[in-house]
Amino acid sequence: MTGQQLYENIRRKKTFLCVGLDTNTEKIPQHLLQDEDAVFTFNRAIIDSTQQFCVAYKPNLAFYEYMGTKGQAALAKTVAYIRTNYPDQFIIADAKRGDIGNTSAMYAGAIFDTAGYDAVTIAPYMGEDSVKPFLRAGKWAILLALTSNSGSQDFQMTEDAAGERLFEKVLRISQQWATEDNMMYVAGATKGKLIADIRKIVPNHFLLIPGVGAQGGSLEETAEYGLNSRCGLLVNSSRQILYADSSQYFAEAAKTEAARVQNKMSQYLKQIG
Amino acid sequence: MTGQQLYENIRRKKTFLCVGLDTNTEKIPQHLLQDEDAVFTFNRAIIDSTQQFCVAYKPNLAFYEYMGTKGQAALAKTVAYIRTNYPDQFIIADAKRGDIGNTSAMYAGAIFDTAGYDAVTIAPYMGEDSVKPFLRAGKWAILLALTSNSGSQDFQMTEDAAGERLFEKVLRISQQWATEDNMMYVAGATKGKLIADIRKIVPNHFLLIPGVGAQGGSLEETAEYGLNSRCGLLVNSSRQILYADSSQYFAEAAKTEAARVQNKMSQYLKQIG
Repeated sequence: MTGQQLYENIRRKKTFLCVGLDTNTEKIPQHLLQDEDAVFTFNRAIIDSTQQFCVAYKPNLAFYEYMGTKGQAALAKTVAYIRTNYPDQFIIADAKRGDIGNTSAMYAGAIFDTAGYDAVTIAPYMGEDSVKPFLRAGKWAILLALTSNSGSQDFQMTEDAAGERLFEKVLRISQQWATEDNMMYVAGATKGKLIADIRKIVPNHFLLIPGVGAQGGSLEETAEYGLNSRCGLLVNSSRQILYADSSQYFAEAAKTEAARVQNKMSQYLKQIG
Repeated sequence: MTGQQLYENIRRKKTFLCVGLDTNTEKIPQHLLQDEDAVFTFNRAIIDSTQQFCVAYKPNLAFYEYMGTKGQAALAKTVAYIRTNYPDQFIIADAKRGDIGNTSAMYAGAIFDTAGYDAVTIAPYMGEDSVKPFLRAGKWAILLALTSNSGSQDFQMTEDAAGERLFEKVLRISQQWATEDNMMYVAGATKGKLIADIRKIVPNHFLLIPGVGAQGGSLEETAEYGLNSRCGLLVNSSRQILYADSSQYFAEAAKTEAARVQNKMSQYLKQIG
């Protein structure tokens, strides 16, 4: 999917919500576990009930790898289901991958070709040749810049001799490798004003914002500091939507929660025109 | 596996070789492709013919993810095969994982419990809470410090105001979280004398050294700068062993190559006593 297509979806649907499919069998409604294919059944219900309120889905691969080959199969089925039924959805593999060049090329093949995702999150530690294999027309590398967790303080905030913080260097240097049409950045929403610092370096790139909701980030602050003239944000919510209710009405509750977030987002989008 | 057990295996077998199972269907002997289970058949032959010369195996997960669910199944079968037939082998998931705390816990479960590895490579960018879930008694987090690729220059060598390079900070800070008995470090063998800089900071930890062989690193230099009084090294070789020959005699050629490396290693071990 191109950036232009993604912008059009955002404008048309009046939302920049990404639903994180972090499906955990300990947290899904327990009556579903009687179903042989519980993970896919849960995902399908969540997708059907939230798709009108979001422009993207983001399964975190850890949750499926935890379930072994059965989890991998449920994930593949989920991606195929979105692709077939809701072809305008942008699908992100939240995988935090990155390896030496020839190995990153295998990951890129696994994620873009074998599994059919539009985008993948990438860790920047190994530098240029670990990222470049993910840069393709119509596909996206989403590079970790500033993450939403407490550990982001350990290395990402380290200043070099010139006062540049590591996450700022990642933003600056990676622009030499990629464009606004094949790279996005992860910017943790628990960081409020730091998103403004990020916007100074990458005014036009899409930012993927995790951490709104369960992790404590604020949608208001994210919109205030992160929106650019074309939107430029994908804001992820996982647990708050997926586990809004644990009864047989979980899908309706997820729909209500997604609609609530979409409604707020539509107002922010109105403000930028 | 504890560090003590690993040291005993090294001493007994007179080798610190780790064989990287980066199995690529484009590179394995093409006659094997007639076999429905070609990847496992290849791995089993490589393992049977190299196991006496090495103490560890390290599948890189990218190569198996590239093959989709079928690749995942071949990998699970490979790990089970090693575990059952050669229980003294140390098995490393080369996965470069790392995510926020609750997600890293899922990866740890996937790798240690579901798949049954002894160790996993971890990217440090997301800091403490992304690494801690991998720290368990008898299991190992192998943190990327200095990698063997050209991109290691981009961020890992960045000096802070006090002149400390990022890879040095990673080595120093991560010792506050972990011990010599649950953490190792990746130190690229293409970096010669930099391994000596690493040894100053982590004199007693195990170092996992990729990049010897196809990537151009030298075993001599690695041994010179990396060995400590108890050995403290696992040196990985992948392509040079796996693809030593592409005929029906590939396993014998792999054996010859592994034996050649083991023979050199036994001499270095003799020097440290």
